[in-house]
Amino acid sequence: LVSKLPEVGTTIFSTMSKMAHEYGAINLSQGFPDFPVSPQLIELVNYYMKQGHNQYAPMPGAPALRQKIAELFQKQYQLKINSETEITITAGATEALFVAIQTVVHPGDEVIIFDPAYDSYSPAVRLSGGKPIHIDLSWPDFKIDWEQVEETITNKTRLIIINTPHNPTGAVLGSEDLLALEELTQKYEQLYVLSDEVYEHITFDGNNHKTVMQYPELAKKSMAVFSFGKTFHATGWKVGYVIAPEYITKEIRKIHQYVTFSVNTATQMALADFLEEESHYNSISNFYQEKRDIFLEGIKKSRFKPLPSKGTYFQLLSYKGISELGDVAMAEWLTKEHKVASIPISVFNQAKTDHKVLRFCFAKNESTLSKAAEILCKI
Amino acid sequence: LVSKLPEVGTTIFSTMSKMAHEYGAINLSQGFPDFPVSPQLIELVNYYMKQGHNQYAPMPGAPALRQKIAELFQKQYQLKINSETEITITAGATEALFVAIQTVVHPGDEVIIFDPAYDSYSPAVRLSGGKPIHIDLSWPDFKIDWEQVEETITNKTRLIIINTPHNPTGAVLGSEDLLALEELTQKYEQLYVLSDEVYEHITFDGNNHKTVMQYPELAKKSMAVFSFGKTFHATGWKVGYVIAPEYITKEIRKIHQYVTFSVNTATQMALADFLEEESHYNSISNFYQEKRDIFLEGIKKSRFKPLPSKGTYFQLLSYKGISELGDVAMAEWLTKEHKVASIPISVFNQAKTDHKVLRFCFAKNESTLSKAAEILCKI
Ligand SMILES: CSCCC(=O)C(=O)O
Ligand SMILES: CSCCC(=O)C(=O)O
Repeated sequence: LVSKLPEVGTTIFSTMSKMAHEYGAINLSQGFPDFPVSPQLIELVNYYMKQGHNQYAPMPGAPALRQKIAELFQKQYQLKINSETEITITAGATEALFVAIQTVVHPGDEVIIFDPAYDSYSPAVRLSGGKPIHIDLSWPDFKIDWEQVEETITNKTRLIIINTPHNPTGAVLGSEDLLALEELTQKYEQLYVLSDEVYEHITFDGNNHKTVMQYPELAKKSMAVFSFGKTFHATGWKVGYVIAPEYITKEIRKIHQYVTFSVNTATQMALADFLEEESHYNSISNFYQEKRDIFLEGIKKSRFKPLPSKGTYFQLLSYKGISELGDVAMAEWLTKEHKVASIPISVFNQAKTDHKVLRFCFAKNESTLSKAAEILCKI
Repeated sequence: LVSKLPEVGTTIFSTMSKMAHEYGAINLSQGFPDFPVSPQLIELVNYYMKQGHNQYAPMPGAPALRQKIAELFQKQYQLKINSETEITITAGATEALFVAIQTVVHPGDEVIIFDPAYDSYSPAVRLSGGKPIHIDLSWPDFKIDWEQVEETITNKTRLIIINTPHNPTGAVLGSEDLLALEELTQKYEQLYVLSDEVYEHITFDGNNHKTVMQYPELAKKSMAVFSFGKTFHATGWKVGYVIAPEYITKEIRKIHQYVTFSVNTATQMALADFLEEESHYNSISNFYQEKRDIFLEGIKKSRFKPLPSKGTYFQLLSYKGISELGDVAMAEWLTKEHKVASIPISVFNQAKTDHKVLRFCFAKNESTLSKAAEILCKI
């Protein structure tokens, strides 16, 4: 059997979560919250299951949920999205990313990916027969050099993948970035954009999220991916969605139809009801900013140096001057010897560049964060 | 945007279910049961959600569920499956089929598909860059001509897809079929098998299900796909799995990891508990055989002629002599004018061969089946 993905091993998230478990370490590695899902939301799922909503949902998603998404999108961004023709519900954002890439990338196409990058982009591109072209974000401020991007574009470049707020760095794109990207998509006809915006509701210090959909010409060539798991502390529920103009959504659905067909029915209906209260969204940024600040306060006296986190539930810490270990070895050592698990950043770089930086997930309750910070202060 | 699947339109299942809804017709088209999911199973999902099992499940599936699957597989088929290395839980059987195909099919590979065939096989093959090679089942007894299969094999043939019990015909494969297939996989080194066995628990008249895993040499080169939705009246829950030897499972998981990553956590744990009572499985065939017989009894005096259904929850009826309409037009006419929705069989044939046969789903309660049969008797 010839492997389609010969270089792929166990994902770093599974590896580190498993190691954290084995060594009884505080798990700040894999990104998932330890906060409870709203009991009201859980009861709504139960209600719809008991009401008998247990058969296939419509392939593009439950109409009620798509309508709610469109309404909230309008309130949040003052943008009209057609819920019938521009939204597709997927088995988590992972499926949305996979299907979006499959939709536009043909064999031989080049896809621009900015490193460090979430680990699913590149394999998904290769499974489409595409060629990932990696461009490094600047270090340590994680900016995109748009001139370098334009120099990298060839007549084979089909897709640019962006991610804002950015995992693992916590950087966010500004208007100037999205305007530069918009210009490129207007200049290069064959070019599309995939925008991973799963942390849209988690931004700090007034860095409001900007979606590709706010830039009219950019929106015409973009697919934007969102996640309920990140927002409602339910990463294990696996419900996400992708917004794209009708002509792209039509093609997205052709593929989604054969990848998973549809998503859990009762969960979709429960989410539709739950979204009635848009207030759910407004408080999330504050909630996470508090967590971040508790963690930052806790490590203030440590020798770790924080890099600015403007969004997501991740905080990068540099250990330069503390240890000469590579970041993978450092993450393992911290887990085994000091019982705090994190994610090494080099695995998000195709070049495996080692900046001596680790990623810590702060989607954890206060006492967990304080305990972890205390440990880090002793190193 | 160049379409990856230019010829794919709305699936016949969505089309007919929608038409049934619009015309207030009895919906025997899309295959889903109208029986309730066990309240006990629903409460288990609720229990695990309330207990806080709402974050990512392990990527290959919850260990408890995989262990239970292995135990029941042993009881049912006297076969040892390694739950750690040979089972992967997927977002429904649809994802399992898609990922299995992506795992073995490389660009340029040929894949043998038997027509009529479930509608996802061929698009999934094409999305892998493979070439579907269609072979017709014999008509009207739906047998595979294994000599013809061998004649069709070239050095590019990578995969043979079988489906037993068979949707849409209700045919089942016998030992002689699986032995013939086993011989082919031994003779042609590059050849793998994907066996869609989602209706394994629904067989009639003593036609027990045979899985590819029962044939030792065949099992070494096979992936078998199963579904909880079909078995527990929960097609909308989207939980399936794929069993394959370790060296294939390793590659399956590499792809599953980037297609959906994992499946709803609480649902997996609930299913694991629910499977404690294996009795759940034993009664399903009887349950559905009764439904089939009610439907057959009901249409006995009609001019429709049933073709034998040995498994699945589908019954084919021929309308030869009743109407000259093509099967698509006939299905539409029946839905609009007589309020019974079915599925035309020609859409399952790449050649669109029209045998004047419609598929009726009998996973419906007695009164629904009787009402539909009554209508058919008047035509
Ligand atoms: C799908 S497991 C990875 C979770 C995550 O998004 C992360 O830790 O970055
Ligand atoms: C995924 S919708 C199709 C359901 C089904 O298996 C069928 O009707 O054949």
